[in-house]
Amino acid sequence: MLAKILSLWSSSTASFPKIPKPVIMATHQENQSQTRNLPHVLLIRKPAVFDMFGEQPFTSNKFHYLKAYESTLPLDQFLTTHAESAKAIFSSAGAPVTAEILQLLPKVRLVVVTSAGLNHIDVGECHRRGVAVANAGNVFSEDVADCAVGLLIDVLRKISAANRFVRQGLWPVNGEYPLGSKLGGKRVGIVGLGSIGSEVAKRLESFGCCISYNSRKKKPSITYPFYPDVCELAANSDVLIICCGLTHETHHMINKQVLSALGKKGIVINVGRGPIIDEKEMVKCLLQGEIAGAGLDVFENEPDVPKDLFALDNVVLSPHSAVFTAESLKEVCELAVANLEAFFSNLPLLTPVRDD
Amino acid sequence: MLAKILSLWSSSTASFPKIPKPVIMATHQENQSQTRNLPHVLLIRKPAVFDMFGEQPFTSNKFHYLKAYESTLPLDQFLTTHAESAKAIFSSAGAPVTAEILQLLPKVRLVVVTSAGLNHIDVGECHRRGVAVANAGNVFSEDVADCAVGLLIDVLRKISAANRFVRQGLWPVNGEYPLGSKLGGKRVGIVGLGSIGSEVAKRLESFGCCISYNSRKKKPSITYPFYPDVCELAANSDVLIICCGLTHETHHMINKQVLSALGKKGIVINVGRGPIIDEKEMVKCLLQGEIAGAGLDVFENEPDVPKDLFALDNVVLSPHSAVFTAESLKEVCELAVANLEAFFSNLPLLTPVRDD
Repeated sequence: MLAKILSLWSSSTASFPKIPKPVIMATHQENQSQTRNLPHVLLIRKPAVFDMFGEQPFTSNKFHYLKAYESTLPLDQFLTTHAESAKAIFSSAGAPVTAEILQLLPKVRLVVVTSAGLNHIDVGECHRRGVAVANAGNVFSEDVADCAVGLLIDVLRKISAANRFVRQGLWPVNGEYPLGSKLGGKRVGIVGLGSIGSEVAKRLESFGCCISYNSRKKKPSITYPFYPDVCELAANSDVLIICCGLTHETHHMINKQVLSALGKKGIVINVGRGPIIDEKEMVKCLLQGEIAGAGLDVFENEPDVPKDLFALDNVVLSPHSAVFTAESLKEVCELAVANLEAFFSNLPLLTPVRDD
Repeated sequence: MLAKILSLWSSSTASFPKIPKPVIMATHQENQSQTRNLPHVLLIRKPAVFDMFGEQPFTSNKFHYLKAYESTLPLDQFLTTHAESAKAIFSSAGAPVTAEILQLLPKVRLVVVTSAGLNHIDVGECHRRGVAVANAGNVFSEDVADCAVGLLIDVLRKISAANRFVRQGLWPVNGEYPLGSKLGGKRVGIVGLGSIGSEVAKRLESFGCCISYNSRKKKPSITYPFYPDVCELAANSDVLIICCGLTHETHHMINKQVLSALGKKGIVINVGRGPIIDEKEMVKCLLQGEIAGAGLDVFENEPDVPKDLFALDNVVLSPHSAVFTAESLKEVCELAVANLEAFFSNLPLLTPVRDD
């Protein structure tokens, strides 16, 4: 997900501290009288949404952007120049916020990021310095859930495979395409019932699927059956949907044993992270008919996808695009602006990251 | 839909009255003592489910099948032989039930079919003779609705197109695939809010779509906004989903004017019948960017699909397979058996076809 954010957003500076391609001197804005009295927010990289929707929707009368990416100065010099005025950092485009950067900006009290993940932010250092952090909250959850459901319908009803069949001109030649399988009544096991998993469950209930789940612990407010053991969940499911995050505990959690428990009619959907599944074992299972199909948005070594999968009609392959739509990119930047405005109005942050 | 049913089911006899490929003499079953006293149900063609799931799930202690397809006799002779014993007809595999057949079976009081459509049944003649008719009811509605939603997610989120992109090995070469568009908040106009349209609406509500509809008349129990004019519905929708039947009124109802009203960002999904859309105009609109995309399960001249569509990445093509899954084929035959059992128990039919 982070790699995607990093690569999706246009960026004129790849790494601290050198900034190529100067466009406008940073002092240009500072001289504009209308922004002189507004608090300054450091924008290290240019958000892709500025190109997609223009900059206007993301401006505010509560603060003024300091655009490091438009400056000719090396980043450290740019930061030193604005050490006193920068009150917040808007880390778009996956721009890292390191202890080094924070040290150069002693007046910063807020870091806002446009991702759910925080791998690129030194959150510990932020909290040590009393710097609040706000993230994307659940803005991306619906898109990921939509994609998970889309992949499941596609695999069960053979939509992409039948689409290829029609495009190859085979319908008039071969006749009917093999029947798919019905969604209603399928036992769907959700691995990780966080905000994405919950959105998946909500959608699949409307199709008549029977939901159960596995997660670190049982959720008291949830009535779906809970399986503390993912293998047991697999044994009691027709479909496994991987919605959890990647941690030491979840790395290769979906292994040969789990896939065998899912069985020959079982389907795996992965919108979490590639390494949650033991990919080699999954490919073997698919090739040998040990499971029935897969819908995969993520892979162990992106953008490399095991070539063996290309020949399989019961597999749908998506290039890590579950998390993004144009709408959610816009929404997440609007949320970042709203967090900044709340901060400068002394109101609570909308999507604060807790220090735990 | 009917053509699909006709072609999907295996059949040893294509048309009245000749029956090739003899297997077992019809009198074989009649001699079996356990079935001697049960009422007889004529089975003209062999249901595909007998091969898929075995015959056992579709047998009953309330009646006995007369399998015309296992007899060496020409159909008319077979019918004459069983003129007195046949009390009902199970028209599977799209086997026609004509006035001629009904005349040969004066004791028949029920015809059960495994389709929603009745084009192959002389319903008028049935009702003139006091023969009740039962059909598939809404068994297929959920499958069609699932497919409609699958096609919509696929078009909006570019699933099939991105799948091709990955399979062609382009991900490591070209980088990210273009962003898709979010389902939530989309204004979805449903054309025909019968049992299929209602199932589509139910599903899309869980994705946060805003539903409105067009149909012959406003439905008093439905709170979704109603547009009596399909053009006005299109003008107020991001997506049109065609779920209505094909009639004189709906033929080419989705014409150039409606597509223009839908607009450059609009998407059409068709799970109704091909000729409801003016296909030539739709292809033109897609080629010229007058609409944004389409998900099509049905076409004007199936199995022929306009070749111009094969080059478009914003189009998903499905070979008229929305209506069928293995599960619904089984379910519809179980429903047929349940209708027969109700009939022979003097109970009301589950899915009677009214005489109107």
